[in-house]
Amino acid sequence: MKKIAGIWLYYLVGSILISCSTGQQAEEKVVYLKDYLVGYQEGQDATLALRRALDECKKVKARRLELPAEKLYFQPDYAVEQYVFVSNNDEGLKRFAFDLTGLSDIVLEGNGAVLLFSGFVCPFLIREAENIEVRNLSIDYTRTFHSEGKIEACGEGWLDVSFASEYPYYFSNGCLHFKDNQGNKYPYSNLLEFDVEKREPAYMVKDYWLSGGCMPAQELKNGNVRIFKDKIKGTPGNILVFGAAQRLIPAFTVTDSKRVRIQHVNIWHCGGMGVIAQRSGDIELDHVQVTPSPGTGRMISITADATHFSNCYGFIRMLNCLFENQKDDATNIHGIYAVIDSIIGPQELIVKLMHPAQEGFDFIRPGQQLELVNHKSLIQYGELSVENVERLNKKYTRVCLTAPLPEGTRVKDVVAAMGPYPEVLIRACKMRNNRARGLLLGSRGKIRIEKNYFHVPGAAILFEGDGSYWYEQSGVRDVVIRENVFDNCNYGIWGKACIAVGSGIYEQRETSRYHRKIRVEENTFHIFDPRLVNLYGVDDFVFKGNRIIHTDAYSYQGQEQRPFVIDNCSNIFIQETED
Amino acid sequence: MKKIAGIWLYYLVGSILISCSTGQQAEEKVVYLKDYLVGYQEGQDATLALRRALDECKKVKARRLELPAEKLYFQPDYAVEQYVFVSNNDEGLKRFAFDLTGLSDIVLEGNGAVLLFSGFVCPFLIREAENIEVRNLSIDYTRTFHSEGKIEACGEGWLDVSFASEYPYYFSNGCLHFKDNQGNKYPYSNLLEFDVEKREPAYMVKDYWLSGGCMPAQELKNGNVRIFKDKIKGTPGNILVFGAAQRLIPAFTVTDSKRVRIQHVNIWHCGGMGVIAQRSGDIELDHVQVTPSPGTGRMISITADATHFSNCYGFIRMLNCLFENQKDDATNIHGIYAVIDSIIGPQELIVKLMHPAQEGFDFIRPGQQLELVNHKSLIQYGELSVENVERLNKKYTRVCLTAPLPEGTRVKDVVAAMGPYPEVLIRACKMRNNRARGLLLGSRGKIRIEKNYFHVPGAAILFEGDGSYWYEQSGVRDVVIRENVFDNCNYGIWGKACIAVGSGIYEQRETSRYHRKIRVEENTFHIFDPRLVNLYGVDDFVFKGNRIIHTDAYSYQGQEQRPFVIDNCSNIFIQETED
Repeated sequence: MKKIAGIWLYYLVGSILISCSTGQQAEEKVVYLKDYLVGYQEGQDATLALRRALDECKKVKARRLELPAEKLYFQPDYAVEQYVFVSNNDEGLKRFAFDLTGLSDIVLEGNGAVLLFSGFVCPFLIREAENIEVRNLSIDYTRTFHSEGKIEACGEGWLDVSFASEYPYYFSNGCLHFKDNQGNKYPYSNLLEFDVEKREPAYMVKDYWLSGGCMPAQELKNGNVRIFKDKIKGTPGNILVFGAAQRLIPAFTVTDSKRVRIQHVNIWHCGGMGVIAQRSGDIELDHVQVTPSPGTGRMISITADATHFSNCYGFIRMLNCLFENQKDDATNIHGIYAVIDSIIGPQELIVKLMHPAQEGFDFIRPGQQLELVNHKSLIQYGELSVENVERLNKKYTRVCLTAPLPEGTRVKDVVAAMGPYPEVLIRACKMRNNRARGLLLGSRGKIRIEKNYFHVPGAAILFEGDGSYWYEQSGVRDVVIRENVFDNCNYGIWGKACIAVGSGIYEQRETSRYHRKIRVEENTFHIFDPRLVNLYGVDDFVFKGNRIIHTDAYSYQGQEQRPFVIDNCSNIFIQETED
Repeated sequence: MKKIAGIWLYYLVGSILISCSTGQQAEEKVVYLKDYLVGYQEGQDATLALRRALDECKKVKARRLELPAEKLYFQPDYAVEQYVFVSNNDEGLKRFAFDLTGLSDIVLEGNGAVLLFSGFVCPFLIREAENIEVRNLSIDYTRTFHSEGKIEACGEGWLDVSFASEYPYYFSNGCLHFKDNQGNKYPYSNLLEFDVEKREPAYMVKDYWLSGGCMPAQELKNGNVRIFKDKIKGTPGNILVFGAAQRLIPAFTVTDSKRVRIQHVNIWHCGGMGVIAQRSGDIELDHVQVTPSPGTGRMISITADATHFSNCYGFIRMLNCLFENQKDDATNIHGIYAVIDSIIGPQELIVKLMHPAQEGFDFIRPGQQLELVNHKSLIQYGELSVENVERLNKKYTRVCLTAPLPEGTRVKDVVAAMGPYPEVLIRACKMRNNRARGLLLGSRGKIRIEKNYFHVPGAAILFEGDGSYWYEQSGVRDVVIRENVFDNCNYGIWGKACIAVGSGIYEQRETSRYHRKIRVEENTFHIFDPRLVNLYGVDDFVFKGNRIIHTDAYSYQGQEQRPFVIDNCSNIFIQETED
């Protein structure tokens, strides 16, 4: 051979070492990635070595995979490929560096490794896996999926922005586009301004959404880029974030798995959610930090929600976590509604997943109970056992039931699995400086929110659920929010109060009681904005023993002065306590 | 039930009928789609009924599925979904109406049915199937994947075009876009002018390629659309074809199947190739007509090649077919080259599929012979047995060999499976009025081209193959072209002669003999263009007994006056016979 690729040496030597020592490893059941990285030098792609190490883990049923305490680079080229439907992220044929599909009883010990990814490769796929622990590592990308520019000047219908070299860009058809040095494109769909001093969304700024994927722009002689948009505004010195158009690259994709623990993991960047878990049970995040990569000067950590859970069960625990500067909520825990598309027999429905980011989601399985819900009032009017499910395609599912549909079953109404619902514990976490809200709570299991800190620009805690827009099943039954600090939330446009309902109840509000039994006790609310609680369609709400401290952190500009707005609720107990 | 979807009645009744008569059908092994269409009315979606009928075919191992002699409508909604990699078309998660995956020994008897599809649904998937016959039906779409407009006026940098109501359009960001009445988008990437009288590509017109998916345009007061493009030209009265940007919807996707016969089938439209077959053997098309839908006034039949065969084996036969007015070649038969990306051991390569429309193609399997080919000279320098193949992902494959790679094996060189190659017989077919070429012949098996008629704007017969652009393996070994009529071909820009070589041989031309043994005998050439044969890198070529008739069908404007341009060839025998 005249020409030998850079990687062959360490790969080959690694293979020999491993084949010689397999016997011993089979006993100890520990695989060391180091053994597959002989000759590895910083900057080389470790993906193939990792694949071989994971193959070995499967082969010997390893109990532990040890990473070296180094900076490891991963490119998409040699990564595992799978077509995945990931709730609330974008589906697709994706590459994964750590494909833990089918593994069980294994600890991935990071030993402090920094995993540095380049391009469109997802860090972790935990699929049909059981008893998995990932710990002591950091995840980052050489080029972010969003882009950041500094606002230099502002005028009527334009903004001038300067970009650091980390955000290469180009122009095509008079529009601004972003790329990386390998030529990959990084499309964006929205703009949001961040306060450079406070390192949070600038006070009360709006998202600007692009139409047709085109932001008219031109390069100025001084090297700045002038972008044109009707009514655009910005404060010079602040950071303008060009938000990623897609959510293709979550850091952890957890699907159809049980007992997954992620601890002492830093998610400095990814192009989607930090941890998205679907149809999975018993998930614990401990000391997971979603925060911008240190030393990079980035304003944004990750491009979507820090965490998100769809149709999960067992327990969901988030302990001692930090979720900051991500481009969407800290968490959202919910089920999935599908819409009745046609009634094809007395016991047979075709239902349709409506939201593109829910397509391909297996939301119901034989043997589960199915609830039938009026899509405008969210009032449940039927409960049936599922006999058989045929997925016609990612959008449509045929559902056969064990008994006839009730009278009044209507096309356009929604159905969802009636659990099992997860129990939720969120304790000692910090949520701050992100876009949008804090916690979106939508499980019917026990929910405990304790000793957390919130400084988010929308509602800190939101009870949603609807059958006509997001199609997320919610409807809480037992929530305790206790001993948290709410530090001047609602400094953005994404909330009506610190604790609020945002359910899609458009009819029968006087009788619909979608959320039930919520206790808000012994919390501290620092507020510049009087709006503490905004509820409708709630039964059994108690607010007592809370400390309320008025501040002038921001200047409140809204009309609403009532701390408690309660509409169409029952069994409400509010004890106002001011400091 | 208050509301019952339109389809439930015939579906349910169909189910009952079938479940009552299953016993008898199991004996006769004939399934009638009609039984699943009770109550079906024209315009209703027959997809679900068809799915149930095909389920029944699988269950009872039916020998025949009979369609009713009617117009049947198919929408994507309830269609089967599969992610498919289709050579030379676009990969994707697609919907299929007729999913024949895994079927064997079955005739799909169309009885003259017209299958009318709406939107992004592919007609046929013949996957891992054996002994399949499809006959007596027509395939059409309610809205074409391309769009056609009439050129009304022309000026410096602009054209005015009028569109019939079949081609709904809209404007976004100052660009022209096409849609259908359901809101689906029909992106286009190129423009080509067709002669309205001759119903063929206008003489010597060029493709106009769009940059960035945007064709600046505006609607005029008279209802025409003015499109803007530098140097654009067009003749008022002619048809401007806005070519589909993707090839997502072939009519027949044949993959990993054996013994497939398609006869008396009209492919009036589809959004990709008419018949694309890959890794399949013994394929016969008899009386397959690719032609514009009668009565619609459309200029274009289908949006890409009429037929295409990659890594096929056994025989390929096309008999009595008509391939006209499609947007690309009549056929292309070839293998697939992958590029050596890295040499990771003495017997181990990582190879890379280069062309996006080849990604995901399993081009080599254990036990096959692999050729190593210099990518610039196309000279083979190695042949090795494949021990093991690991598909890393759609782009990269790891190949383990049974013996060491030869000295001089180089990154960037190409590899391909050394057959089995198909024998090809194309007889009594008409090829005319399409974009580009007639037959691209690239099998090393016996090729017989007999009694066909060609009136194509490029080379009628082209011998290609290259290791640096299309990465298509060719290199013929035994070709006879006999008793065909070549009727004034080369009236477009896509050919250097009636019979030509277009291989990517960039080095060692003096010794590279990529194509071998070609006989051109007893054909009739009507020519307005003197260029009959253009060869390089060919060994053993005989041209004799052909009739050459000069015409003035078009006015030849080229410089080259030599009928035979022979460069770097050996064993050439040319007998010029003029009439």
